[in-house]
Amino acid sequence: MRILGIDPGSVVCGYGVIEVDSARRLQLVEYGVVEAKRQFPELPRRLEVIFQRITQVIERTLPDEAAFEEAFYGKNVQSLLKLSHARGVAMVAATLRQVPITEYAALQVKQCVTGKGRASKEQVQFMVHKMLGISESNPFYDATDALAIAITHALRGGAGAARSTERRAAKSGGWADFVRDNPDRVVKR
Amino acid sequence: MRILGIDPGSVVCGYGVIEVDSARRLQLVEYGVVEAKRQFPELPRRLEVIFQRITQVIERTLPDEAAFEEAFYGKNVQSLLKLSHARGVAMVAATLRQVPITEYAALQVKQCVTGKGRASKEQVQFMVHKMLGISESNPFYDATDALAIAITHALRGGAGAARSTERRAAKSGGWADFVRDNPDRVVKR
Repeated sequence: MRILGIDPGSVVCGYGVIEVDSARRLQLVEYGVVEAKRQFPELPRRLEVIFQRITQVIERTLPDEAAFEEAFYGKNVQSLLKLSHARGVAMVAATLRQVPITEYAALQVKQCVTGKGRASKEQVQFMVHKMLGISESNPFYDATDALAIAITHALRGGAGAARSTERRAAKSGGWADFVRDNPDRVVKR
Repeated sequence: MRILGIDPGSVVCGYGVIEVDSARRLQLVEYGVVEAKRQFPELPRRLEVIFQRITQVIERTLPDEAAFEEAFYGKNVQSLLKLSHARGVAMVAATLRQVPITEYAALQVKQCVTGKGRASKEQVQFMVHKMLGISESNPFYDATDALAIAITHALRGGAGAARSTERRAAKSGGWADFVRDNPDRVVKR
């Protein structure tokens, strides 16, 4: 099964795609960040960039499911509101491509990846790099946080998680299947 | 000029479309609400419904510009977060159709429509009905609030507001022009 993890922020939106097989072996597909604020200071244009980039990631990597961190209440209201705009837009990019969404609390994600609910961002990044064999060092915690959310869904996810790729091929209704079954109906951007 | 007003809520999303001519005469095009929560309790599916319905309204009414109320800080954080998800999704539906967005504070909207910054929802609805010649009584303040936001943009809007329909026909780059110029490239849903 292929999983898209999303860590939407008010400034940077991180994403990460992994593959998990029936033995729960993990493999990195791709990861990165959308830094819309640098290009566009105004919120509506920034949301458009997030929508388009996440849609491109979905069309390129064909995830079966998506995982989001639950909205986080500790921050100030201003940045929480902008984050929620971005989060809504990333969610709709996934649902419009028939990618079902599961949400995990930050505590669950840290617990799953590091064994500690109160792990630092550095510890999360260290473990994500280890689990997925990433050797490059990068300053984007948003991207490794997104991978951590995807890993949590892969290892702890409910009914849908850790299905074998055989079952994935048999399942129908997702975007990957739609693309496979309707190559002529998919609009290339 | 044709203006789409949006009043996104965490439960109901109101919209209203009006036409304003160079003499600032107002005319109702259509208004309504998206009640996604009744159909879908889960947020991602609700956001999808809001995105699709607002996109349909834009494709049907071809607004030149859109007006949103600024996010409102008085409510509890939970509903403010959900409202922000919906607001982001409605914004992206507009920007993806090249409809530029202007934001107005609630106080400005009430001031413009009723002359009082602290007017009640009933007073706003009464004045909106009067200004647009709406005779039906309806219980949806969300829809009349959306019309009030559109009226504010029509009467107080900056550079773009209250342009004549002649100028509108001459202007290029908007969704209406794209549809006119590229009838074969517009996907009907």
